[in-house]
Amino acid sequence: MEAKAPHIVILGAGFGGLTFCEHFPNTSARLTLVDRQNHHLFQPLLYQVASAGLSAPDIAQPIRSILSDKPNITVLMDAVTDINLKERQITSASNVLHYDYLVFALGGMTSYFGHPEWEQFAPGLKSLDDAMRIRREVLYAFENAEDEPDPKRVQQLLTIVVVGGGPTGVELAGTFAELARYVLTKDFRHIDPRRAKIILIEASPRVLAQFPESLSAKTVEQLQALGVEVRTATRVKNITKGRVELETGEILAENIIWAAGVAASPLTKKIGVPLDKGGRVLVNPDLSLPEHPEVFAIGDMALVLDENGKPVPGVSPAAMQMAQHVSGIIDDELVWGRKERKPFKYWDKGTMATIGRSAAVAKIGRFEFSGFIAWLMWLVIHLIFLVGFRNKISVLMQWTYSYFTYKRGARIITGHHDA
Amino acid sequence: MEAKAPHIVILGAGFGGLTFCEHFPNTSARLTLVDRQNHHLFQPLLYQVASAGLSAPDIAQPIRSILSDKPNITVLMDAVTDINLKERQITSASNVLHYDYLVFALGGMTSYFGHPEWEQFAPGLKSLDDAMRIRREVLYAFENAEDEPDPKRVQQLLTIVVVGGGPTGVELAGTFAELARYVLTKDFRHIDPRRAKIILIEASPRVLAQFPESLSAKTVEQLQALGVEVRTATRVKNITKGRVELETGEILAENIIWAAGVAASPLTKKIGVPLDKGGRVLVNPDLSLPEHPEVFAIGDMALVLDENGKPVPGVSPAAMQMAQHVSGIIDDELVWGRKERKPFKYWDKGTMATIGRSAAVAKIGRFEFSGFIAWLMWLVIHLIFLVGFRNKISVLMQWTYSYFTYKRGARIITGHHDA
Repeated sequence: MEAKAPHIVILGAGFGGLTFCEHFPNTSARLTLVDRQNHHLFQPLLYQVASAGLSAPDIAQPIRSILSDKPNITVLMDAVTDINLKERQITSASNVLHYDYLVFALGGMTSYFGHPEWEQFAPGLKSLDDAMRIRREVLYAFENAEDEPDPKRVQQLLTIVVVGGGPTGVELAGTFAELARYVLTKDFRHIDPRRAKIILIEASPRVLAQFPESLSAKTVEQLQALGVEVRTATRVKNITKGRVELETGEILAENIIWAAGVAASPLTKKIGVPLDKGGRVLVNPDLSLPEHPEVFAIGDMALVLDENGKPVPGVSPAAMQMAQHVSGIIDDELVWGRKERKPFKYWDKGTMATIGRSAAVAKIGRFEFSGFIAWLMWLVIHLIFLVGFRNKISVLMQWTYSYFTYKRGARIITGHHDA
Repeated sequence: MEAKAPHIVILGAGFGGLTFCEHFPNTSARLTLVDRQNHHLFQPLLYQVASAGLSAPDIAQPIRSILSDKPNITVLMDAVTDINLKERQITSASNVLHYDYLVFALGGMTSYFGHPEWEQFAPGLKSLDDAMRIRREVLYAFENAEDEPDPKRVQQLLTIVVVGGGPTGVELAGTFAELARYVLTKDFRHIDPRRAKIILIEASPRVLAQFPESLSAKTVEQLQALGVEVRTATRVKNITKGRVELETGEILAENIIWAAGVAASPLTKKIGVPLDKGGRVLVNPDLSLPEHPEVFAIGDMALVLDENGKPVPGVSPAAMQMAQHVSGIIDDELVWGRKERKPFKYWDKGTMATIGRSAAVAKIGRFEFSGFIAWLMWLVIHLIFLVGFRNKISVLMQWTYSYFTYKRGARIITGHHDA
């Protein structure tokens, strides 16, 4: 039976890979899901782990546990090392897998635009380890400032620069401003945490470029109300330890966080198909790879154009829609042998970004929202999509607690400080 | 005013140090609390972080936040490097502190009985980093076993040895047995997690030696019902990577956890006073140091004898009682100049250890409890003493969730696997 049952290999258990496994209806096919991590990560809330609001397990769920009631799905925690489309073979650290269908859903990673040496001084935010590193270093800087005699050094310790004015950068800047202004105020004796400087740097003329201009302006207003210094049309020339060089000068900042660029997983280079400059795979309208109808790419690593010729954005709803599309194609072919495939159509349900307490922006269809109502929508939607009943309850509890007490539940330093 | 206000330095923010700060009534004295960590850790639940039941922030609370409403207390996150009782001076990495009164509350650390080389192969459980390391390595072993072809190696991967049959060892063995038997059962396709072996090794003739014999026997019964193999009167000869050597043979186990020995903080050696072989400071009946009435030692690092000449056990209620005793002495002297000091008296409120779901043992006064009722008492008492309202609610929620679903909320692997 093993020899006959078609084998579908899915690489990556992010929104795309996991949605595929959850929705694929055919239980006579064998599915193998491979991920380097043992958990599915709810990326949209990762910035709240970095800023000590949530604990890591609140936004992660063991992949095996999510899929435990699907006996035809095998989960492997393993790192893919080689891809051979011709032999239909995937090699990983401990396995060699042969597939009938292959779904790439490897997601993205932080890109430093040709400056990988900046990473050590300006960490990105893609994994739980990234988030816990940022949390540790930011909290540690405040601790360090408390017994630092040199006032210049104190100001450097209390300065956080966030590079990149997309949703992640905006969310990070807002949440760190709140940390300094509300959460830490009464806890120190020698420093005043409200003197912390949070600076958001964006190269293009406005933040949240994918939103309408009016909402970008509202975002800047709300960020400034929290005390964030927003510098748009500002390009980073160089980053070294504790120092950001701009064309207009330099900023000394103990913590520099990189939220400026995303590129596809470097594994895309091993596929041997054309890539765009962000490393994304150029797929056919049905999301399959050129000359490989049995191989698909979905999510952040796929470059798909919508009806207007614009690329589908790298957001989780797009990855989930692509997963359902591919799941439908493969199931149809296994059941009916059908060969005519429909092109993928992206349904833009809207975009939103949160800025802070009662502050957010959202665009849904033609409607624009900002402030409390946008924030409430953001909360509800993120709670609904967060994977796992336990996590929903836990996050709701943490948010309620933080809202009423102005405290954060995960203000602990673990791991080793980067000397 | 700074020059006049008496300065009390407290080293360590465990149960002893924190209780001292919370209870010290005199707000005209200046207090400085120094700890290497930014958080107070609720040690009794640490094993649940190691076994993926709780997340790290659930059992930790920022020290600054606990004491934020006491403006006369300064908290420093710093590592003590030198102690000079003659000059009344404490040196740490970033500070030099002069004191009028000094309270040592540095706690204990894992002791390998003269075999520090075992630590790398058999981690102890004292900090959140320890717990997250154990969680990572145990979960990783199950992941690894899932794609391991060699059945012998699979059995090694699925074997966990816990060395030491005190409360921590019993709790760890019980919780890992439950993890394998209940939590992971449906999540793997190639291995059966119920075939995991959990072995508890104790050198003395019985586990929980500080409990009455009848409760030790009940503990073994309850552990065996969970599938734990209990080997008492068994001495460990040597530990190397993945291998425990006993006098009667050897055990191959991917995970070996050391819960056998506790010694006082190594800083006690720098005090320059007599120590017992566990490194504990021999204190006067009032808990002050010989020839230094202005210096006290409390908690796990102090050797105090009760009325019967038996040492007061290294448990949190003892540390808290000592803290209150010393707080009373210092306050009296600052207010009244009183010089006659009462000796410390330990009030033994009872001892308890949990074994697993609905399984525990407790001795309170002359009464012995085991099974469900002891377990319920354990739950309630630990919830009451857990520091922080948020943490109480969160832990209660996690426990309720785990009780009804047989799942664990923190089954995620973070950090780097020890190769």
